[in-house]
Amino acid sequence: MRPNPWPSGRPTSVRRVEVGGEQPYTVTVGAGLLEQVRVPHRHVALIHPADLPPTFVEAVQAALSPTVTVNVPARDECKTLAVYADVLSRLAAANLPRDGAVVGLGGGAATDLAGFVAASYLRGVAFYTLPTTLLGMVDAAVGGKTGVNLPEGKNLVGAFWPPRAVWCDVDTLSTLPPAVFREGAAEAYKHGLIAEPSLLPRVLSPEFWPGGAGLEGTLADAIAVKAGVVSRDLHERGERAFLNFGHTLAHALEAHTHHAIPHGEAVGYGMHYAARLSRALGGADLTGHTLAFLRWQQPTPLPDLTFDSLWPYMARDKKADADGVRFVLLHDLARPFLGRVPEEVLRREFAGWQTDLLPVR
Amino acid sequence: MRPNPWPSGRPTSVRRVEVGGEQPYTVTVGAGLLEQVRVPHRHVALIHPADLPPTFVEAVQAALSPTVTVNVPARDECKTLAVYADVLSRLAAANLPRDGAVVGLGGGAATDLAGFVAASYLRGVAFYTLPTTLLGMVDAAVGGKTGVNLPEGKNLVGAFWPPRAVWCDVDTLSTLPPAVFREGAAEAYKHGLIAEPSLLPRVLSPEFWPGGAGLEGTLADAIAVKAGVVSRDLHERGERAFLNFGHTLAHALEAHTHHAIPHGEAVGYGMHYAARLSRALGGADLTGHTLAFLRWQQPTPLPDLTFDSLWPYMARDKKADADGVRFVLLHDLARPFLGRVPEEVLRREFAGWQTDLLPVR
Repeated sequence: MRPNPWPSGRPTSVRRVEVGGEQPYTVTVGAGLLEQVRVPHRHVALIHPADLPPTFVEAVQAALSPTVTVNVPARDECKTLAVYADVLSRLAAANLPRDGAVVGLGGGAATDLAGFVAASYLRGVAFYTLPTTLLGMVDAAVGGKTGVNLPEGKNLVGAFWPPRAVWCDVDTLSTLPPAVFREGAAEAYKHGLIAEPSLLPRVLSPEFWPGGAGLEGTLADAIAVKAGVVSRDLHERGERAFLNFGHTLAHALEAHTHHAIPHGEAVGYGMHYAARLSRALGGADLTGHTLAFLRWQQPTPLPDLTFDSLWPYMARDKKADADGVRFVLLHDLARPFLGRVPEEVLRREFAGWQTDLLPVR
Repeated sequence: MRPNPWPSGRPTSVRRVEVGGEQPYTVTVGAGLLEQVRVPHRHVALIHPADLPPTFVEAVQAALSPTVTVNVPARDECKTLAVYADVLSRLAAANLPRDGAVVGLGGGAATDLAGFVAASYLRGVAFYTLPTTLLGMVDAAVGGKTGVNLPEGKNLVGAFWPPRAVWCDVDTLSTLPPAVFREGAAEAYKHGLIAEPSLLPRVLSPEFWPGGAGLEGTLADAIAVKAGVVSRDLHERGERAFLNFGHTLAHALEAHTHHAIPHGEAVGYGMHYAARLSRALGGADLTGHTLAFLRWQQPTPLPDLTFDSLWPYMARDKKADADGVRFVLLHDLARPFLGRVPEEVLRREFAGWQTDLLPVR
């Protein structure tokens, strides 16, 4: 018997979020889940980032006895077609059969990669995730989006391949550096803005931090926003696009800085730009919320940027179609819509956004 | 106006085969289709092998005005993750939008690659195929299987991604070397064995050759066998596996010879082995049919082979599961089943199969 490596001494509660759609599944949020995980497959490939705490990997190995364990580079370094090819070869060399399963353990980058491997190895095998970051729990683990980056941009290749189950072990969050926890809160805050305003104060509250009484509940409610949207719109034909609030600028910031700005911080910056665009087009003024979040998040300062240096990345965003680039905007809290923004407005608000950031920088 | 590059002077008939399933589509078989093709997308990426006759590419370019045309290495050389990555980057650099389409023109290898690109670029865009080989028309273009090879084996990565439409322009077949036409006939003959015995004499008849009166009809009927199976079993949970008759040994022959043996010839050899296994397990003796096909096909002679050199490849076949390797076998014509064959029988029949091939070699 392995001892529980995360004795918390505090009462924990397990919360469950059901994700509907063609292939319903359950997201379980609670403590001590890594050691309790079970899957109905004789052969399992466990994929995790090389920098994950060894105790996490050992706990899941003890629980699942994987046929093969593959460690991949940390963070977005694993989201390349080169790493994807290597992982597929490892699974093939281990003869993982088509009734086997791929289990992704780690942050959103590793589970995105693991999901695309699961979607395409032998044209698709069962997939499970154990996200170990806040970002991975709130965003990457729900929704079935898997994939890797191309040199030309982020997430340009992948598949919709929902997991069969997701386990969010909140004990893993207590090992995150505070900056990484705050980074990951961006998606939870975004869910507050686009759908569930009660989340806004709860995400910024000390009770949301690991060990706080609000962690499981706030996390589960933030996950439930995404689960609801995804259940209603599995293939991103409609409201699912609203989950991209803040992401058009965020993806451009990430690409332009070669990912020196982490995703959650880029989303923090991008939400404030989107709030300015929303206000410019006649929506409510929500910039107080987005600035409050940035002050709380304390993101990495941005390098000097020009609109023209970011514009090509925004124009390549997946929400681009034959008629140009659309932005997710807000009429008000919880009232998102897709709008086209004239280029003059984009430029003017970019300048204003930079001025707003001066105190943050 | 481009002149029709394939004036045939003969009366042609257009045949249509409907493929059911979650996303029904039509396979059109006839002459002069390359020039008539239309798709409802403003942006199209055309993918074709570098060795395709330029008139084919020009005809489709004139019909579709593609945003980007990508040529890929000939035959299975294009079915690698390296080529896949290059093609994806070309599409991203051309800003192909998510409401754009990928059109695959060429043999089965190029359309398999193009389909996996379509399945995964921006997590999936519309896909169309224009197969230009007999093998591509009868096998690769119908069924939604797309993918590439790994160093560890054939078709180990890919997706189920059905095309929106398939056009089989029979004029393209008249440019095929006779050996390539005979190679491709293997899958049509296989469809005769597993489901539609009337195809057996028709495939071996001179009327099946380009210019023959039986071409469109025999082709359409061979395609219809696969279309029927695929319509009933989109995700290969059951009878679709029967389409792999002859393929367990075929894949091993291809892998072991590094694809010196083309797929259709490997299937020709593999069908005879499977016919011997079927007889050994008490099924009807269909080896007369499979030997007649090999005499007609005149395949590339095989190098010296041992059972032990091929066995690891067979054991890695996708029909392998936790309990070992299964073979598609025939009780009789049109009566396929999945059976496990004891290793002693596999070895003994391998020796008999080699003896049978002596006159062919």
